[in-house]
Amino acid sequence: MHPSGFPEWLPEGQLVERRVIDTLRQVFELYGFGPLRTRAVESVKDLVAKGETDKEIYVLRRLQADHEDDDAGVGLRFDLTVPLARYVSENAGRLLFPFRRYQIQPVWRGERPQEGRYREFIQADIDIVGRGHLPAGSEAELPAVVADALRRLPLPGVVVRMNNRKILQGFLAALGVTDVVKILRIIDKLDKVGPQALTEMLVDNGVADREAQLCLRLAQIRRGDASFVDDVRALGVSDPTLDEGLEELAAVLQAGQALQPGLLQADLGIARGLDYYTGTVYETVLTGYDKLGSVCSGGRYDNLIGAGTDSYPGVGISVGVTRILGALLGRNKLGASRKVPSCVLVAVIDEETRRASSQVAAQLRARGIPTEVSPGADKYGKQIRYADQRGIPFVWFTQPDGHQVRDLRSDTQHPVDPADWNPPASDLTVQILSLP
Amino acid sequence: MHPSGFPEWLPEGQLVERRVIDTLRQVFELYGFGPLRTRAVESVKDLVAKGETDKEIYVLRRLQADHEDDDAGVGLRFDLTVPLARYVSENAGRLLFPFRRYQIQPVWRGERPQEGRYREFIQADIDIVGRGHLPAGSEAELPAVVADALRRLPLPGVVVRMNNRKILQGFLAALGVTDVVKILRIIDKLDKVGPQALTEMLVDNGVADREAQLCLRLAQIRRGDASFVDDVRALGVSDPTLDEGLEELAAVLQAGQALQPGLLQADLGIARGLDYYTGTVYETVLTGYDKLGSVCSGGRYDNLIGAGTDSYPGVGISVGVTRILGALLGRNKLGASRKVPSCVLVAVIDEETRRASSQVAAQLRARGIPTEVSPGADKYGKQIRYADQRGIPFVWFTQPDGHQVRDLRSDTQHPVDPADWNPPASDLTVQILSLP
Repeated sequence: MHPSGFPEWLPEGQLVERRVIDTLRQVFELYGFGPLRTRAVESVKDLVAKGETDKEIYVLRRLQADHEDDDAGVGLRFDLTVPLARYVSENAGRLLFPFRRYQIQPVWRGERPQEGRYREFIQADIDIVGRGHLPAGSEAELPAVVADALRRLPLPGVVVRMNNRKILQGFLAALGVTDVVKILRIIDKLDKVGPQALTEMLVDNGVADREAQLCLRLAQIRRGDASFVDDVRALGVSDPTLDEGLEELAAVLQAGQALQPGLLQADLGIARGLDYYTGTVYETVLTGYDKLGSVCSGGRYDNLIGAGTDSYPGVGISVGVTRILGALLGRNKLGASRKVPSCVLVAVIDEETRRASSQVAAQLRARGIPTEVSPGADKYGKQIRYADQRGIPFVWFTQPDGHQVRDLRSDTQHPVDPADWNPPASDLTVQILSLP
Repeated sequence: MHPSGFPEWLPEGQLVERRVIDTLRQVFELYGFGPLRTRAVESVKDLVAKGETDKEIYVLRRLQADHEDDDAGVGLRFDLTVPLARYVSENAGRLLFPFRRYQIQPVWRGERPQEGRYREFIQADIDIVGRGHLPAGSEAELPAVVADALRRLPLPGVVVRMNNRKILQGFLAALGVTDVVKILRIIDKLDKVGPQALTEMLVDNGVADREAQLCLRLAQIRRGDASFVDDVRALGVSDPTLDEGLEELAAVLQAGQALQPGLLQADLGIARGLDYYTGTVYETVLTGYDKLGSVCSGGRYDNLIGAGTDSYPGVGISVGVTRILGALLGRNKLGASRKVPSCVLVAVIDEETRRASSQVAAQLRARGIPTEVSPGADKYGKQIRYADQRGIPFVWFTQPDGHQVRDLRSDTQHPVDPADWNPPASDLTVQILSLP
């Protein structure tokens, strides 16, 4: 039994995933985001209220529930925003605002597995939640943090496409569209179905011909600067919510340009499926992987979190770690510089002197050098092969007349002192490699 | 709705947990163990076959399952050994043996929550799995690795108590006991119920008076060296499996003494509930927290993993991260040196010059200094209070006439250059503190 949609990597992929997550975490902390780990379960009530479709939710029950069963009504989280909202509501009196947190955990969705879509996958989220108001610059800061993190990894480049829900909502209201949520979800499919099919879908769903054409023209606007405002104005549609959205999006785009030129793009076709977004929304395409869908999405939510009489507006962005790794590992585009963390293998002459080998290993580890002792007192050739198969760069020989280290890449061997030998810094930890 | 048994820490506890997990991971990699992350679900068949009781298993179903539902028959893992066994069986042809892996993930058990027992908790496991045979010294190495990791954290000391399943099985066989598993589980309760009640429970379960006394005397043997062998011999019971177990336990104890004197103790009352152990078993008590139960358990399993005609004997040990943190955070014995990762807060004069503050922050982050920019251009006093409430040690002022840094602990302020200022190394990252 191997359930589909639950990916698991081989050891090399595991090392790559570990380094990717560590890099994200380090960069998030560098920007002052604190760690958060929440429980896997949420109440089914919360999940249903905030999810896209009930079918995606996994509920739990005990295999043999007894009468005291109090697990009823819990299911697995499908994102990290619902748990954040619940955590903030529960602990609002004990948190400091603005609350900056990152969270890197798996989420579960019972959808049909396909390329880029899994039933269990890791998300890496950062959010800023304010009390009463959101700090200036938050919506521009989040994509810059994520881009900084991704740039430190051997990954393709990214462009973050942004829109503002108010633009779409105001525009549709001005056109007299009533079922805004339904029409938003249709507009969201532009990239997938193309302009022709989109117009037809809009008409089939009760939007008049001329209005459908206007929707299409709006959704096709893409600009790297504030000139998108003029493009929208040229459509001749006017509405106060639309104006608010245009102003907000232009401001975020401008602040983003100051932090990192070229990262942000206004794309008025971005809608995002989830209902809880109220302002800026993000989607991110990995250069050269357009068909993979968004690898990094999010947005602003003003009404998701409730606690007492205060409002808790927030903004978040979520990196699809498994989606990125699934695509790159699946195409053999990423690898690790070796298959195990060990930098040194200490050879063993015979079981009687294993203790001497262990002592050398302890000396090396005390200086932060990942080291393992050979599992068996085999012939040296076999011990060297053990290291070679795993990509361990150095083999250490502890002999009665002194210590020697062999570099397996250059096949050279030198006398060394366990008290002060160090490998090159680049060999200390496993490196992620971009493969051709 | 806050389901009991699913603990979640406040931000300070989250930072402590993060540092504890990072330390374990770093030390595990220092010993050459590679990372493994497996999916949350296993087949219910596997879980039932290897679990202690069906009641503890959580199964999944989709809230609105349709006809194509293929999730039937999966449940959440209750430990990290069952997933390891399944991963090795599935990938045996693509792994290198001995396979050394660590795994730090939550597990789920539907049991009644109480001190030290949760429905969701983090385990940190290391295992060595051989093909055909297990490398010499593996059973002594694992407790030494864990002890090395725990010693780097401000935690109470540990003693690892060990037994060998063959001792108990051989001893019981020699006494004519037939339902060995049932009697093992009773013997395992010695610490909880005391000698009097234990003897009564054995007699109630069909063990004759004299034999029950012998079981009690065996279970009470505790020694830091191989002298436990003489204690067992003095009981006058003889059996080939018993002899094998005594020999193995004495060898592991001796090898352990060489790696780290005083860490290991033979305790012939340790049985461990799970059926799959076949040799050495471990339990670990945190000094001063005897009632908490074992914080680090495991053992050797010769027949758990099957793949083709080869045998895959393994040995593993599992640190109960949530059990340890629950006890220490709950008693306010652990804290963090600050409440956020940020080492520096860059103050903002007004929104027009926010860009200058962001540039200073970027310079500091490029040198690895966790930095956030003040959320608002408030009065300096308010910005200093923001840093102070979070324990951020330094506030940076970017003024037209130059830069200044204020150390909030000494309340002193100095002119500085953003191109080369560095905080003391101990302020760079959040430290875990042992509280009185």
